[in-house]
Amino acid sequence: MTQTLESPVTTGPAARWLTDFEAALSARDIPAAAGMFATPSFWRDLVSFSWNLTTVEDPDGVTDLLENTLDRTDPRGFILAEPEETTDGVTTAWFDFETAVGRGHGLLRLKDEDGQQKAWTMLTTLQELKGHEEPRGLRRPKGAQHGIDRNRQTWAEKRRQEAETLGLTEQPYALIVGGGQGGIALGARLRQLGVPALVIDRHARPGDQWRGRYKSLCLHDPVWYDHLPYLKFPDNWPVFAPKDKIGDWLEFYTQVMEVPYWSATTATTSAYDEGSGTWTVEVERAGEKLTLHPTQLVMATGMSGKPNIPDFPGMDVFTGEQHHSSQHPGPDAYAGKRVVVIGSNNSAFDICGALWEHGADVTMVQRSSTHIVKSDSLMEIGLGDLYSERALAAGVTTEKADLIFASLPYRIMHEFQVPLYEQMAERDKDFYERLEGAGFWHDWGDDGSGLFMKYLRRGSGYYIDVGAAELVANGDVKLAHGEVSHLTEDAVVLADGTSLPADLVVYATGYGSMNGWAADLISQEVADRVGKCWGLGSGTTKDPGPWEGEQRNMWKPTQVEQLWFMGGNLHQSRHYSLYLALQLKARYEGIPTPVYRLQEVHHLR
Amino acid sequence: MTQTLESPVTTGPAARWLTDFEAALSARDIPAAAGMFATPSFWRDLVSFSWNLTTVEDPDGVTDLLENTLDRTDPRGFILAEPEETTDGVTTAWFDFETAVGRGHGLLRLKDEDGQQKAWTMLTTLQELKGHEEPRGLRRPKGAQHGIDRNRQTWAEKRRQEAETLGLTEQPYALIVGGGQGGIALGARLRQLGVPALVIDRHARPGDQWRGRYKSLCLHDPVWYDHLPYLKFPDNWPVFAPKDKIGDWLEFYTQVMEVPYWSATTATTSAYDEGSGTWTVEVERAGEKLTLHPTQLVMATGMSGKPNIPDFPGMDVFTGEQHHSSQHPGPDAYAGKRVVVIGSNNSAFDICGALWEHGADVTMVQRSSTHIVKSDSLMEIGLGDLYSERALAAGVTTEKADLIFASLPYRIMHEFQVPLYEQMAERDKDFYERLEGAGFWHDWGDDGSGLFMKYLRRGSGYYIDVGAAELVANGDVKLAHGEVSHLTEDAVVLADGTSLPADLVVYATGYGSMNGWAADLISQEVADRVGKCWGLGSGTTKDPGPWEGEQRNMWKPTQVEQLWFMGGNLHQSRHYSLYLALQLKARYEGIPTPVYRLQEVHHLR
Repeated sequence: MTQTLESPVTTGPAARWLTDFEAALSARDIPAAAGMFATPSFWRDLVSFSWNLTTVEDPDGVTDLLENTLDRTDPRGFILAEPEETTDGVTTAWFDFETAVGRGHGLLRLKDEDGQQKAWTMLTTLQELKGHEEPRGLRRPKGAQHGIDRNRQTWAEKRRQEAETLGLTEQPYALIVGGGQGGIALGARLRQLGVPALVIDRHARPGDQWRGRYKSLCLHDPVWYDHLPYLKFPDNWPVFAPKDKIGDWLEFYTQVMEVPYWSATTATTSAYDEGSGTWTVEVERAGEKLTLHPTQLVMATGMSGKPNIPDFPGMDVFTGEQHHSSQHPGPDAYAGKRVVVIGSNNSAFDICGALWEHGADVTMVQRSSTHIVKSDSLMEIGLGDLYSERALAAGVTTEKADLIFASLPYRIMHEFQVPLYEQMAERDKDFYERLEGAGFWHDWGDDGSGLFMKYLRRGSGYYIDVGAAELVANGDVKLAHGEVSHLTEDAVVLADGTSLPADLVVYATGYGSMNGWAADLISQEVADRVGKCWGLGSGTTKDPGPWEGEQRNMWKPTQVEQLWFMGGNLHQSRHYSLYLALQLKARYEGIPTPVYRLQEVHHLR
Repeated sequence: MTQTLESPVTTGPAARWLTDFEAALSARDIPAAAGMFATPSFWRDLVSFSWNLTTVEDPDGVTDLLENTLDRTDPRGFILAEPEETTDGVTTAWFDFETAVGRGHGLLRLKDEDGQQKAWTMLTTLQELKGHEEPRGLRRPKGAQHGIDRNRQTWAEKRRQEAETLGLTEQPYALIVGGGQGGIALGARLRQLGVPALVIDRHARPGDQWRGRYKSLCLHDPVWYDHLPYLKFPDNWPVFAPKDKIGDWLEFYTQVMEVPYWSATTATTSAYDEGSGTWTVEVERAGEKLTLHPTQLVMATGMSGKPNIPDFPGMDVFTGEQHHSSQHPGPDAYAGKRVVVIGSNNSAFDICGALWEHGADVTMVQRSSTHIVKSDSLMEIGLGDLYSERALAAGVTTEKADLIFASLPYRIMHEFQVPLYEQMAERDKDFYERLEGAGFWHDWGDDGSGLFMKYLRRGSGYYIDVGAAELVANGDVKLAHGEVSHLTEDAVVLADGTSLPADLVVYATGYGSMNGWAADLISQEVADRVGKCWGLGSGTTKDPGPWEGEQRNMWKPTQVEQLWFMGGNLHQSRHYSLYLALQLKARYEGIPTPVYRLQEVHHLR
């Protein structure tokens, strides 16, 4: 049969579903609309209906979402964005739609339920606000101001004027505290959307967040996963960018995207002023004290921003050097030294590997089990369908990959992940046998769902192996187990009495919840109102329930109005910066943004 | 009829032509191959057959090219790269092919001649050398060096080591004198190809070549035409980039592409050393004298690099300020001053406009007629099919546009240009009437072929109007005519005795031929052996014959071995840098590069 007879664009099941769905929505017939969803089913909305990041489940959840949002959202114009495809009984379709205030894009998956094609997953996302479209492509700025104008200001003069006024005589609408990849990506989005925003960061230059880390560090995620908004890495960019190279790129990007950015600036205190409806933020900029009054305060200090520094007895009597992994300068000074690294996740492995390479005598202290995957296996099996040259060749652009990924419901994501990690276990069987033979405590996550779920649930507990695991497997890096009891003048003593002589102790002990930053900057009370950031409430290790459905407090409204959290890896910084920027833009323009199902606080840290 | 019956990919006229052409070439049957070209016809080759940039004409020219190149080129594997298209009797086809040493890409146009489909135009280009493919896409570098290596060098360490050795203890194979867009683009290509190259430039920072120009300057060419290799401007980039923004981009680009670049460095003298087969180049780098010994010397000092500073009597007695347009700082200091601008091309107009906007009393001295087109008209009618959002939407990428443009033979290019400028004349009729009514001497080029032919033939004689022409048309900027007789203490006196009182005189008198740079740096003798750079030998004003067929001395072998000229606008810097880089790479690798039809010298400057 020819394609023409099989699936014309307007008459496939997805096209029909969208037409019927729109008809039900137009008629405000919520039971009819909800009846078009299967059980189970998952509708994930990024801002377009909910002014929130939220997932509802099953017809009941759809009913609740629509009852609360349908009238004001006034959705319409549902139309296939490209031909639908059916594979293994699932029809997948990209679609566009409109709301009262914006334009959206979505991804629908249909399955048969009792002889009817029903929605199994649906992703709806807001892409732009009407009347506030970004100046890109056909709308790009002209640059030169043609014609004659006796009050002409050049681009350089305008930039200089902004630098001399923003944050000084003009207040930013949004203050972004933290200028790593998250703050920069959000700053670039807000610049594009015309929202006056200022990024502040304590380092001397944008990119120093990466430059300052241990010298052998390269990104553990591959280039296809790491693009920033608007400007992709060129096709000669390394798969795993060295930290200094990514640092330089971030610095350049900040300038090219004209992100207002104050380096060498620390926010010291902040408080919300009910009278003015703005935050009062005290900052020190290159030694000078200034007060800012932003309406919106965004903590972009990083989900890996606030070090967990342990408090072991004897840390004060230890006479060697000791520091958190985030402060580790690299291995050069430690040839021939005895180093004890507390921890067995990403940073611990990278630091152990580099130290061993430089001739240090290295012991890793494993306190709990760790999940390890080989970088190549993760790339090929875990990411390759979405983020790779192969994916690009198959038409899966970065933007498409982001939405495909976003369309997989968190509730069932682990089910899709488990088989991938089973493949990796099989592929690298010898490696895991050797690793466990060396006494390493290895796990695949509570439910065997592997690395990405660990990242989303707890943001810790894994290592993407780029070589150092071999050193543990073969005994070059020594392995010890258990909790630290205390430190002596020259050793780390474990709970079982093992004494590990040390010239240097590295605490690769991870990072705390981002609301800790709010405690430091604002108050413990406000931090507690916000609650724990990150995690899904999966009820697995370090991610206590109840089920939240989305990452706690990230990129969406929190219990503290006008306070937001931006963070995550480069992928998340790229993807979610759009949705946070649109939420801020709507507020800046006075567009009503009633939040559907504002998250509750179940944990404080 | 369905498409399937009409033109399957393998049996259209172009597919058949390529098959037959390859058969003739394989059989070394030159008469058969040459007989497949129409009269007239044009085969333009960029490096792939000729190790030159050259165009041969008609079956005789094809015969000559093949007799000299066929055996060693050993071309084969001609295959359509995408389906051919037939419009108005011309079949157009993109194709790929191989040579003994490389892979090529081409564009063929067939026309009917006496009932046979014959080649009317053919472009063949070398895209890469076998065994020396660029590390891009699937071949991109890994970045992180996985595994364990006790001699590991980080990216930052390697970069530092190179900076500490290249040009000092290690000699660059190629020295590129001049670090504007041309030098940077070539430097980026050579870095990709693994050719040790060093770019030197007298300015403090990359991009200062643009930053230092008059402050209202924006690019006169639109963004789609201006991309550099490897990394395109983002889609929020202005259509006409302000000079400081493009300066920042060039600086960033140099760093991201890891182009070895010495700022604040001037080459003072250079001589070829027959013994070593290298150049001896004396440079001053931030005050320190150094000697470099590159094998290849590339002058990338810019086709608009060496100012023509006139030598009018009385310039020494004039007590006001006087400078060449390239030194003009912008209008700020000249409010209320009397300014005389000598010249009536691009820089003259931009400077007059900015001065008038700032309240100066401005007179333009027109010495010869100028061609003016409105920027909008040029964009829409002149460039829109190849370089625009419209072109992109139609699948004409920048790379495709470059090759389409390159495939139009210079010999007949003006015939395609004339109707475009006739459209512009009609569209902006009122404007031209007003302009000529104000006494402005306006022309459309000797043969009515307009701006682009003027650019290719003489590199001068035009203005892309972004507003300032209106000031001349309405008399706000005063217009005087004729040659300058002399200057007095406070005025410019013209040949007809007109005296123009002046506080400032700007010499917008253009730039000399690039071989003048070689005269300064090496010797007049070497500059004369090279001869005039730029121009086609069209026999039109300022482009004396005989016909050269290609731009004189640009991006290709000159009469002085190991001496090259790189230059032109951003489009040319992007496009031709590939072909110059491949010529240098082949020589670096010891691949034989016999040059077909090395150009002769007909003019010295």
